[in-house]
Amino acid sequence: MTTSNIETTPVFFSDIEQAAQRLDGVAHRTPVMTSRTLNEICGCEIFLKCENYQRMGAFKFRGAYNALSQLDDEQKKCGVITFSSGNHAQAVALSGKLLNIPATIVMPKDAPKVKLNGTKGYGAEVLLYDRSEEKREEIAKEIQEERGMVLIPPFDHPHIMAGQGTAAKELFEDVGPLDALLVPCGGGGLISGSAISANHFSPECEIFGVEPEAGNDGQQSFKSRQLVSIPTPKTIADGAQTNSLGHLTLAVMLKHVKQMLTATDDELIRTMFFLYERMKLVVEPTATLGLAPVFNKNLDLSGKRVGIILSGGNVDLKALGNLFSTI
Amino acid sequence: MTTSNIETTPVFFSDIEQAAQRLDGVAHRTPVMTSRTLNEICGCEIFLKCENYQRMGAFKFRGAYNALSQLDDEQKKCGVITFSSGNHAQAVALSGKLLNIPATIVMPKDAPKVKLNGTKGYGAEVLLYDRSEEKREEIAKEIQEERGMVLIPPFDHPHIMAGQGTAAKELFEDVGPLDALLVPCGGGGLISGSAISANHFSPECEIFGVEPEAGNDGQQSFKSRQLVSIPTPKTIADGAQTNSLGHLTLAVMLKHVKQMLTATDDELIRTMFFLYERMKLVVEPTATLGLAPVFNKNLDLSGKRVGIILSGGNVDLKALGNLFSTI
Repeated sequence: MTTSNIETTPVFFSDIEQAAQRLDGVAHRTPVMTSRTLNEICGCEIFLKCENYQRMGAFKFRGAYNALSQLDDEQKKCGVITFSSGNHAQAVALSGKLLNIPATIVMPKDAPKVKLNGTKGYGAEVLLYDRSEEKREEIAKEIQEERGMVLIPPFDHPHIMAGQGTAAKELFEDVGPLDALLVPCGGGGLISGSAISANHFSPECEIFGVEPEAGNDGQQSFKSRQLVSIPTPKTIADGAQTNSLGHLTLAVMLKHVKQMLTATDDELIRTMFFLYERMKLVVEPTATLGLAPVFNKNLDLSGKRVGIILSGGNVDLKALGNLFSTI
Repeated sequence: MTTSNIETTPVFFSDIEQAAQRLDGVAHRTPVMTSRTLNEICGCEIFLKCENYQRMGAFKFRGAYNALSQLDDEQKKCGVITFSSGNHAQAVALSGKLLNIPATIVMPKDAPKVKLNGTKGYGAEVLLYDRSEEKREEIAKEIQEERGMVLIPPFDHPHIMAGQGTAAKELFEDVGPLDALLVPCGGGGLISGSAISANHFSPECEIFGVEPEAGNDGQQSFKSRQLVSIPTPKTIADGAQTNSLGHLTLAVMLKHVKQMLTATDDELIRTMFFLYERMKLVVEPTATLGLAPVFNKNLDLSGKRVGIILSGGNVDLKALGNLFSTI
């Protein structure tokens, strides 16, 4: 375990408003879905913000496009590079394609095929690395310096955080104030952006972050108020297999988040099965982190109005049968 | 193969309008979804009417609720009986629950578990039969007479057809006139109702019915203009494993449908995979019948505005991996 100091955040709600303007007509305004059965099971009124219907299948498009569209002409010409377990990769690739910016992506060899193929399909150059032996940050940095490219980090950047915050902005605009908001947490880009939007629209709303139990670095960082780094966790929530939060994301979380929770893989699978069977939603395991604590009765929000962000839907469909056969 | 005479239809657009009033606030007004990628692949502008998001997971709720809500007090007290491969069963069960009418359902032993469980979950009595040895119509008729129940047939009834027509009514209200409408076809309840709505809103719209290739009784009936009956077909499209159209449905189809098409199981799986992977929609094999001919380039609708009804989403999720592993 290593720790480091925390920086203060430079992200304000006005940044999220500007991001929303950049994304207007480019990103989808995703639907909010509800279910009588889900409300009965959980004992509260749940609003699911369906980012699985976002372009390239996850909220990550919001942050990437917001970041890439702010580059200057020289930067756009040299291109961008990033490292990602998958969805941020596709997000940068698609944003690059739309903005005519060359994109290079450093991806783990064991990333889901649907994410690898998606990234290549958007025309990006893909460089594979071994998750257990190499550090993606170092590989990316080396190539970045060599080629003069701009590094687009997956979460710890004000433009990324502001872009991700537009999803919760839309949710509050659509359903009004909420008592609680639950958000999947990997590096903290989505939850920090969401928290800033929540604070603007619904200051009383309690924000909960949810991580895979096997990778609770965020919970540790939140508790110790210092950035805690862990080895890559083993979990089906591949979008939250991060080693640590970021300096900027943790700063926002310490200010606005009420509690960090965790969910086991079994809980994620049960939650996921419900979303497929009863709500007909194709979601990826990571996307179910927000709903899992409520669905599995680990968090009591009886009678409350609860927003939950379903972060994405890029799942290996051929492996679904195996996943669901365990329940 | 057996044939019989065709009766004329007693279903008018005013019946669909009245059905829509009965369903208002009870059935979901399901979303219409679109995809740039799908339009590029198919070369036309496609509007998917997502009845997988209907209550109990399929359009069948519309017809069943419309029929049950028109029973008189004495009939409601005695209860209803029906036979169904699955979705109509759940539709009658849920409608019975909502209207406080006892419901008995005759279902095949090999119906998908999700449909069996759903039907029981809505509080209906379920009687199982062997598809290959027994005739569901006969079993249902026997119990109906014994208990004085009203038989609610799965498709060949004016109230059922009028209820099913409300899905296409909503589609035209939402997207305006269309050049073509493709509809899955089992017994013809959905396509006959859809055709009457299309004829009202968009008289130039060409209607196509799509059946599983293994069970093309509808195509045969349409060609010979007589009701053709076939043995139960083997196909993954379990919602279209009907033996024949109905007298009433065929009459409407002969008047309004341009052509009857078929799709192979392989074509259905490829279409289904796209809907899951790229559009994040949980659909059942039968639901993909309408899209299959366009997606697999068996029908050229280049440059046209095309409506397609995705009929339902009640699929055996644990079997999905096997299904998708074949492509």
